[in-house]
Amino acid sequence: MPKRRQQTTKPWGGRFREGTHPAVERFTASVHFDRRLAPYDIQGSMAHARMLAKCGILTRAEAEAILRGLRVILREVERGAFPWDPSLEDVHMNIEARLTRKIGAAGGKLHTARSRNDQVALDLRLYLRDQIQVLRRQVRELQGVLLARAGAHLDVILPGYTHLQPAQPVLLAHHLLAYFEMFQRDRERLASCLDRVNVLPLGAGALAGTTFAIDPHTVAADLGFARVAANSLDAVADRDFVAEFLACAALLMMHLSRLGEEIVLWASAEFGFVTLPDALATGSSMMPQKKNPDVAELARGKAGRVYGALMGILTVLKGLPLSYNRDLQEDKEGLFDAVDTAQATVTVMAELLRGLRFRPERMRAAAAGRHLNATDVADYLAAKGVPFRAAHAVVGRLVRHCLERGCAIEALPLEDLRRFSPRFGRDVYEYLTLEACVARRASPGGTAPAAVRRALRDAANRLKVE
Amino acid sequence: MPKRRQQTTKPWGGRFREGTHPAVERFTASVHFDRRLAPYDIQGSMAHARMLAKCGILTRAEAEAILRGLRVILREVERGAFPWDPSLEDVHMNIEARLTRKIGAAGGKLHTARSRNDQVALDLRLYLRDQIQVLRRQVRELQGVLLARAGAHLDVILPGYTHLQPAQPVLLAHHLLAYFEMFQRDRERLASCLDRVNVLPLGAGALAGTTFAIDPHTVAADLGFARVAANSLDAVADRDFVAEFLACAALLMMHLSRLGEEIVLWASAEFGFVTLPDALATGSSMMPQKKNPDVAELARGKAGRVYGALMGILTVLKGLPLSYNRDLQEDKEGLFDAVDTAQATVTVMAELLRGLRFRPERMRAAAAGRHLNATDVADYLAAKGVPFRAAHAVVGRLVRHCLERGCAIEALPLEDLRRFSPRFGRDVYEYLTLEACVARRASPGGTAPAAVRRALRDAANRLKVE
Amino acid sequence: MPKRRQQTTKPWGGRFREGTHPAVERFTASVHFDRRLAPYDIQGSMAHARMLAKCGILTRAEAEAILRGLRVILREVERGAFPWDPSLEDVHMNIEARLTRKIGAAGGKLHTARSRNDQVALDLRLYLRDQIQVLRRQVRELQGVLLARAGAHLDVILPGYTHLQPAQPVLLAHHLLAYFEMFQRDRERLASCLDRVNVLPLGAGALAGTTFAIDPHTVAADLGFARVAANSLDAVADRDFVAEFLACAALLMMHLSRLGEEIVLWASAEFGFVTLPDALATGSSMMPQKKNPDVAELARGKAGRVYGALMGILTVLKGLPLSYNRDLQEDKEGLFDAVDTAQATVTVMAELLRGLRFRPERMRAAAAGRHLNATDVADYLAAKGVPFRAAHAVVGRLVRHCLERGCAIEALPLEDLRRFSPRFGRDVYEYLTLEACVARRASPGGTAPAAVRRALRDAANRLKVE
Amino acid sequence: MPKRRQQTTKPWGGRFREGTHPAVERFTASVHFDRRLAPYDIQGSMAHARMLAKCGILTRAEAEAILRGLRVILREVERGAFPWDPSLEDVHMNIEARLTRKIGAAGGKLHTARSRNDQVALDLRLYLRDQIQVLRRQVRELQGVLLARAGAHLDVILPGYTHLQPAQPVLLAHHLLAYFEMFQRDRERLASCLDRVNVLPLGAGALAGTTFAIDPHTVAADLGFARVAANSLDAVADRDFVAEFLACAALLMMHLSRLGEEIVLWASAEFGFVTLPDALATGSSMMPQKKNPDVAELARGKAGRVYGALMGILTVLKGLPLSYNRDLQEDKEGLFDAVDTAQATVTVMAELLRGLRFRPERMRAAAAGRHLNATDVADYLAAKGVPFRAAHAVVGRLVRHCLERGCAIEALPLEDLRRFSPRFGRDVYEYLTLEACVARRASPGGTAPAAVRRALRDAANRLKVE
Repeated sequence: MPKRRQQTTKPWGGRFREGTHPAVERFTASVHFDRRLAPYDIQGSMAHARMLAKCGILTRAEAEAILRGLRVILREVERGAFPWDPSLEDVHMNIEARLTRKIGAAGGKLHTARSRNDQVALDLRLYLRDQIQVLRRQVRELQGVLLARAGAHLDVILPGYTHLQPAQPVLLAHHLLAYFEMFQRDRERLASCLDRVNVLPLGAGALAGTTFAIDPHTVAADLGFARVAANSLDAVADRDFVAEFLACAALLMMHLSRLGEEIVLWASAEFGFVTLPDALATGSSMMPQKKNPDVAELARGKAGRVYGALMGILTVLKGLPLSYNRDLQEDKEGLFDAVDTAQATVTVMAELLRGLRFRPERMRAAAAGRHLNATDVADYLAAKGVPFRAAHAVVGRLVRHCLERGCAIEALPLEDLRRFSPRFGRDVYEYLTLEACVARRASPGGTAPAAVRRALRDAANRLKVE
Repeated sequence: MPKRRQQTTKPWGGRFREGTHPAVERFTASVHFDRRLAPYDIQGSMAHARMLAKCGILTRAEAEAILRGLRVILREVERGAFPWDPSLEDVHMNIEARLTRKIGAAGGKLHTARSRNDQVALDLRLYLRDQIQVLRRQVRELQGVLLARAGAHLDVILPGYTHLQPAQPVLLAHHLLAYFEMFQRDRERLASCLDRVNVLPLGAGALAGTTFAIDPHTVAADLGFARVAANSLDAVADRDFVAEFLACAALLMMHLSRLGEEIVLWASAEFGFVTLPDALATGSSMMPQKKNPDVAELARGKAGRVYGALMGILTVLKGLPLSYNRDLQEDKEGLFDAVDTAQATVTVMAELLRGLRFRPERMRAAAAGRHLNATDVADYLAAKGVPFRAAHAVVGRLVRHCLERGCAIEALPLEDLRRFSPRFGRDVYEYLTLEACVARRASPGGTAPAAVRRALRDAANRLKVE
Repeated sequence: MPKRRQQTTKPWGGRFREGTHPAVERFTASVHFDRRLAPYDIQGSMAHARMLAKCGILTRAEAEAILRGLRVILREVERGAFPWDPSLEDVHMNIEARLTRKIGAAGGKLHTARSRNDQVALDLRLYLRDQIQVLRRQVRELQGVLLARAGAHLDVILPGYTHLQPAQPVLLAHHLLAYFEMFQRDRERLASCLDRVNVLPLGAGALAGTTFAIDPHTVAADLGFARVAANSLDAVADRDFVAEFLACAALLMMHLSRLGEEIVLWASAEFGFVTLPDALATGSSMMPQKKNPDVAELARGKAGRVYGALMGILTVLKGLPLSYNRDLQEDKEGLFDAVDTAQATVTVMAELLRGLRFRPERMRAAAAGRHLNATDVADYLAAKGVPFRAAHAVVGRLVRHCLERGCAIEALPLEDLRRFSPRFGRDVYEYLTLEACVARRASPGGTAPAAVRRALRDAANRLKVE
Repeated sequence: MPKRRQQTTKPWGGRFREGTHPAVERFTASVHFDRRLAPYDIQGSMAHARMLAKCGILTRAEAEAILRGLRVILREVERGAFPWDPSLEDVHMNIEARLTRKIGAAGGKLHTARSRNDQVALDLRLYLRDQIQVLRRQVRELQGVLLARAGAHLDVILPGYTHLQPAQPVLLAHHLLAYFEMFQRDRERLASCLDRVNVLPLGAGALAGTTFAIDPHTVAADLGFARVAANSLDAVADRDFVAEFLACAALLMMHLSRLGEEIVLWASAEFGFVTLPDALATGSSMMPQKKNPDVAELARGKAGRVYGALMGILTVLKGLPLSYNRDLQEDKEGLFDAVDTAQATVTVMAELLRGLRFRPERMRAAAAGRHLNATDVADYLAAKGVPFRAAHAVVGRLVRHCLERGCAIEALPLEDLRRFSPRFGRDVYEYLTLEACVARRASPGGTAPAAVRRALRDAANRLKVE
């Protein structure tokens, strides 16, 4: 075993004779990733110091020195000038050590009535609260793009698909609004998650509460927390809020992966429903003709890493006894990555949707030639008195006939149609236009222009409510 | 390829010349699992039929025949007398076929203005809404047991742990209340999930809405749905509610796995904090001395299958284009299994907690001999003017001394203590009792008896609100 | 708590005063799923009995009675006539109890020198060994179908894609052989997994070995195991083989999901590369024109449940101390489901591939019009001395020009081409045919007909080696 | 949209009019993580250049210039002096651009007959091949530590557990060897995975092979690859090897999590089976008595991130059509993190095991007082002619009696024993010592000293075979 340097920097002094093994230091260190929490650590410490002063645990002068010192440190962090020291393990010890260097003994008093266990829970909650709010705004922006583009394409018809087979014609606006709904649920879920993030754990101490006569409600009010944690053991052992956020993020990324898949499909030569602007596509160093939808592909693929982060934290927490265990240090990297990924993907997909060029003529052509009005033919016959199951069978044979001849139903002359059913009349042609098929689906939530216009208005209203 | 029987039972008649390959029938069939939805399918169909009649799409007589027929079928299902036919693919076709056999042609009209795509979404939402409510009640019951047992053990002290090392003494009641908090969050999450389950998808048709002048709001009111789906494509393509529920269930199971782990630990010979009543343990066919905490172990292990179901649905949904795709049939088995697992585990763990015999003397003994008052010794010195970091170092050395001699801090005579710090006075012995240590942590959420009594009252109040 | 019936059926007699709580019985029972292991349990018991007799632990007469009894029971199981009793917990107790009923006291002696801990590990290994062999044969069959179809379509050209954008022309046979390679790796992995499944755990007893002078190598030889477990604690605690198989199955299902995705794409109206025979597709009860690729969709979706099962077992095993813990009972249902899913999906996909009708004219049309020869134009210019990056840029502009005019490169007259580069000569037209482009990629593993024919021969040879 | 800078650095020139949107650049860039592949990229490029020269595609002079340039770049990379440019997207473009700057036009020729699609697959395979070998050596080292510590503790007895209840006494050496077996399987799996990593993808070009008359077998021999990829589409689309490695790593981490859990348990005050040396533990800044097993906890928790990485890549690959898609860029970060995590955890756990102080007296005490010989008492009675089930019941009652009196079975005088069964004789006391119980389990793989010594020898031999 390599020689150990004397145990000096560690805050646990007396019980240990030996310094920490360098391999252990490296393995347990977290400052290379938890330094991202520095602004939140400082924000939390400032509120803590103000409360300690208010409760008479610190003197006014001590508190002021601490606050001044922390402000200086915050600026160092923001400027990238903070001298991070890996041997100080984590963000908390780094900041506390620097504070003490700056303001002397008072710096050490900042840690009164708290431990790293409740402190790190606080930092993580402050961080996540912020990021959720940022993410919700970004999702809202994306929804706004969807609305804007839907509103501008109210007359564009494309095939609606089930099983990726053309099913019935729908408005492009209607299709885009389906994504609006998904992202609306994402925003709702994030808001609901926020309720459980927005709880103050400070005061829990290492696990059992603190012996000081603190006032956590003051801190909560100062930091904008809606509640104070009701149980100290739970406060330091709980990472539900991380897992819940990751589940929300996984669903959001799943929606983005579905949108990504559709853009990939639509940008394919075979579909050809959209053209990517050059600025939002990439080419190939080998194949000069290529214009690739990399953004949409990555949006689709990046679901994987967020699913993985969710699985990761659930695994970490499985079977963990109370209260704090070091396993919980594994809560951060997956979370940070998921936050970054979700924010970046939402933002770039908004950009992509903003720039996408729809090709209404290709969409319409795809909707026109593929018997998307077959359901309506059956409905037509049903309205003329043919039982639906029978009408369905008639139209099935009719479609087969058309497939064999390579033509659309409405391209058949009336006498041909009548060979399939005598109920067909001249009015059928009017009945079968794409516009008529779309307009007929006027039920609430349906694709008829009137319904979609209503849906657009409702969506705009829902978007206003933050 | 084996011979195909004529295509007769399938509802898609005319376009197909050949019957379905038996291997395909088997592979795509779902009636062996989706029959569980039968009561919900019938409930949904009855509301649909009432609405169709109200809107004049069915005659009063047709609707009544349908309702009568469905009631008979419901009783058949409940009695286990329904003749399920795998060749009819799924629960919907089975019930519709039986209805038509019972009441004739009117049976076929029930399907007017809906498709299996919106119908199955409805069934699944009705099912899940019910099951969430059942589960929330079961969790509440479990919380009640925790409260009752906590209230009855307000004077029991055990070690609080961090890193599974004895840290500070806590009340058993305080420890139990930590789980109350976890389950309270589970109930909150389930309630919030319910908001997004409780949306009516009917009216979306196959994907684009229906051409009939239906009134989904009537159906929503009839079935107790708070909202109607705003977009038909989304309504048939959305399984967020399944994934969101599974995420809630995964967190709940994670909590149960933590509780399970603790019971396994506490029931071990080494901890010995609880005895399992014979009725809640199992033995070994080989080792006559064994009494095993199988229930707690299974509760811990069963987190796995629910995590798996969550990952399963997230995988299914990843990258799926709009709208309905057959992949979505894979939404059910994992969900059913997770519902069963969560409900059974919550219920049996409530039973286990109810029957668990705590061993206060073992808990106290574990709390007494392991320097759990070391923090308080440091606090004592700090209160006497020793800076905390220095006090911490002194106590560290003191603990090492005690470890070497195999004694507790409070067992040392005052002169010995004074060799570590001259600030020690006679009052230290009073200061260091377990009771004093516990009582001192009186901050909100702390383990002091006063704080715990307050927490118990608050918890009881929160439990009253359903 | 409900009244308990007297503890009679349980094999752990004396230490318990109370019977098991019914909720605990239900929660811990496994016979409703582990009965699937019955034939393997019997197979293992027969080998065990033969060894016990050989070692003189059972008399010859006892062993023969046991073997006779087990054979009768096996037939009962196979005929579905075995009277499963849930109160007997699991498959092992059910069979042992029935054996004792049939042959008297000798039945009880079968359990000599083993415990349920090593017995269940044995049963599961026997089961999985069988199923892996079945699955490998099924995968091989699927590979055979791929080879056959590839061999029959050596002249069909379709677009090769990257980013789902047409990239370069490839042979359909080449495309199909890509899947051959994936499934070949699956078979290799399964074979390698088998090595670790095929280890005999019997003799480990409950955890520490047995006190009887048994000969596990005899049992291993009898049952065809390659090795005997080297450590008894590991033998009863190990479920690596389940997790490893599930990882193999997850990769296999991933491949099937990729194939499923491609068939869904190819069957779409937009691609139109394949037609599904009626027998392998399904229709819609509402939309008469629909022919849906449900099998391919389900193959794609079913990856989810197998991924879930993998995550499930990994979660169960995480952080589990030695040796046997009841959590391990959670190893079976996910495994059984994954085995069923993988076997059914491989089989039905082989059927689907066998029946798929390729549409070479559509494939060729898609390959022809989309500048798939652009790379070759650049190569052409490079061969004429233009540096590749410059040639690439020239062809990029040329493609843009063609896109704007809606024509293929080879449709431009030579003077037009020369406006982009004076190096173009008349030989370029010959150079740019699809056939020429394909034939030129003759590197090992490339798509040139010669290379593909070689690959087909190699593949056929590799398939012969089991 | 912000102004775009002119498209200059991109290698896809002509087809694009607009530069890439900065948000897209950021979103699609990979150089901040794939630069880790630089040494492998260079290694692969050097082999490629040598082959191109050998095949006459490059001149000798060109190849030499390239090799010289790449050697210089490699040193820059190793010294940390390479000027990474994020606008050059990825590691490949960065290195190629730098090479061209250094050696002029010949640099551009290096890319002849390859594309980034086969290049990145090559780099990743070279990287992973190396890392697997490193990891296998580290695991072997860990196994060596287990062997050494087992060999040095052949006389230490501790309780063997099932259900975390004391079951039967075992040797500490036997317990440690159980982990040896797990890690042996890990090494086997990694070796088997290596077979599928060790395949050369170069020559696949972008997807269809290359038009140059290259000789991939030369490259394979040069780089030590055992095989050349048989299909170009598969070669660029395949990431099985990543997923398979992650599955191996997940199992390895699972084993480490089990070991971590046991060390946490053993280091607890209640078990007290081990003492952590100060250098391998950490303390608490608040609680002076704490010595925490952070390394073991983190080893347990870090299973989560590797499980997550596995889930991540499986999700990415699910449903992806052929051939290369940009989603595949998501293969790296999870892999890199898993490699780092597995290597660091194996290494630090070897250190921890090396330093762990076993406490044989505590182990023995735990084994002595808890009726671990109960099975043997039953065996004793069985040997005296009592049927085993009856003997088991007798001993069950006997254990209950002892539990009530708080004594061990062997502490009861003979007359007391005889009240439970007249078959007890004086020889029972000899029969029941821990040593006798352990020695009796002499079956292969059992815990008897003779068996364990044999197992140690076998293990040492197996360890020699790399």
